[in-house]
Amino acid sequence: MTLLLKSFPARAKIWSEVFADAEEPFFADPSLVTDTKAVTALACWDLPEDLTVYPNLKLVLSVGAGVDHMRELPQHLMLCRSLAPGIETQVRDWVIMACLMAHRDIPSYLHQAKSDTWNSLKITANADRRIGVLGMGRIGTLVAQNLTALGFPVVGWSRSGRPVDGVKTYGAEGLPTVLAQSDILVCLLPLTPETKGILHARTFAALPKGAHLVHAGRGPHLNMDDLKAALDTEHLSSAILDVTNPEPLPKHHWGWSHPKLIVTPHVAAQTDAHEGAQHALNVVRALKLGEIPPGLVNQANGY
Amino acid sequence: MTLLLKSFPARAKIWSEVFADAEEPFFADPSLVTDTKAVTALACWDLPEDLTVYPNLKLVLSVGAGVDHMRELPQHLMLCRSLAPGIETQVRDWVIMACLMAHRDIPSYLHQAKSDTWNSLKITANADRRIGVLGMGRIGTLVAQNLTALGFPVVGWSRSGRPVDGVKTYGAEGLPTVLAQSDILVCLLPLTPETKGILHARTFAALPKGAHLVHAGRGPHLNMDDLKAALDTEHLSSAILDVTNPEPLPKHHWGWSHPKLIVTPHVAAQTDAHEGAQHALNVVRALKLGEIPPGLVNQANGY
Repeated sequence: MTLLLKSFPARAKIWSEVFADAEEPFFADPSLVTDTKAVTALACWDLPEDLTVYPNLKLVLSVGAGVDHMRELPQHLMLCRSLAPGIETQVRDWVIMACLMAHRDIPSYLHQAKSDTWNSLKITANADRRIGVLGMGRIGTLVAQNLTALGFPVVGWSRSGRPVDGVKTYGAEGLPTVLAQSDILVCLLPLTPETKGILHARTFAALPKGAHLVHAGRGPHLNMDDLKAALDTEHLSSAILDVTNPEPLPKHHWGWSHPKLIVTPHVAAQTDAHEGAQHALNVVRALKLGEIPPGLVNQANGY
Repeated sequence: MTLLLKSFPARAKIWSEVFADAEEPFFADPSLVTDTKAVTALACWDLPEDLTVYPNLKLVLSVGAGVDHMRELPQHLMLCRSLAPGIETQVRDWVIMACLMAHRDIPSYLHQAKSDTWNSLKITANADRRIGVLGMGRIGTLVAQNLTALGFPVVGWSRSGRPVDGVKTYGAEGLPTVLAQSDILVCLLPLTPETKGILHARTFAALPKGAHLVHAGRGPHLNMDDLKAALDTEHLSSAILDVTNPEPLPKHHWGWSHPKLIVTPHVAAQTDAHEGAQHALNVVRALKLGEIPPGLVNQANGY
């Protein structure tokens, strides 16, 4: 019962220490595996080509919060995603920041500054700025609750429509209802075949005129040409993106200089190696005890 | 016992309605005063030249949150500042936004975007980003409590050093202690002879290397040449200003285009006319009852 990590040396060093302290067996790199039969769990970002070299493998753990980058696994393998709590508060902070920047006209003020223009725009009351959150998992829920506490009317959308404490949440069929009351639309969806491309022209058209987009999901959720059209026709007022399509944004892409767009380079969260190692330890121990490992992904849903 | 408002017509219209609904006597403009002896309270931003035309005047009410723009009043007059709750949450939101922007490297990402550069910077944990709040009045306290809730270690500084629930607060002598632990320095001070120019070279030098400035106090708190020097030598990493010196920032001022500076045009808060009128009504009623009017300023301290 040994976990194998396939990652970069700085992460491997920290995980080695955490597993040594916990007296749990650990291989810090595929090249260091002395007995391939011992490997029961594999933690990685990119899957190795051939998983059959580890005949007793039971579980694959993504070292990030998402698993959309993984190819389909053989049916007998469990898939987990990292649940480092730091990721959740980091994304919460980035999204709160981006919503406040949209709410308080930072894209407009940055644009005005280019022509040395001192001109105040009228503040909209928080109670009059409705926010819709697409994706009400752990992070979406945290974001929705924090924005509610700041006085914004918030609604959520998830496939299940599962009730969330303090936040009105709609299920799959409720998407038009959510979009119609999203003066700021926040995307925190997992990337699945159903959500790929969800941020397209018809979605933008369903938002109130003058709405803002805050996107911290995945690049392929977004049709950037449709976003450009919605910004250029002034149907959307601004967009703040942490993920882009393509990603990274290439040199000379219109997105670098559009006056209504702010881009950060996929930095809403970075996994802390200590937290990731601790979560991996919890996964391995659950596996030993025959319990459900934390962060287990429903591979039919993709999250 | 009548309140006279000296302001612009849009505000006068709303105040007239609020006072009419409350059946309290009200003059909507100095030109409409039918009996100067009736005027016991005057609400204005700019004081009229001659206050002696209102022989029974007891109180002057600033229609903004600050009173630093007012000249010294005759000793028998009380001075109040507006306490519209909307101002407090607006400033809270702007400051939280600006702190998160500094914390999550938005000035650097905006600068990188100018050269189409996709490059992620390491996220500092909230627990490792200490924030110092200068000015622990109602707004400073609200800001400090909200930033604490987001996981930042926050200390406050006020002349009195009055304890604040959940926030370690230092008095006048504690300024060097506060500055030394301010990775982000937030200025929310009132403008008084003691605080004028407080953001100068020696203050910046007392901050940890790489610190950020978030300024929503008043323009004259800040020596902008000293700020430029601190940014250019990289002692400070960034500054986000809602107020400037001079203000408005003139055309061709270096502050419009400095890569480490973001400026918003004094929009951290805007008084809502309804809220302002309601507060004025509370002031007038307290005056009638001989109670302490809400927002009363200690004119010796200047706030």
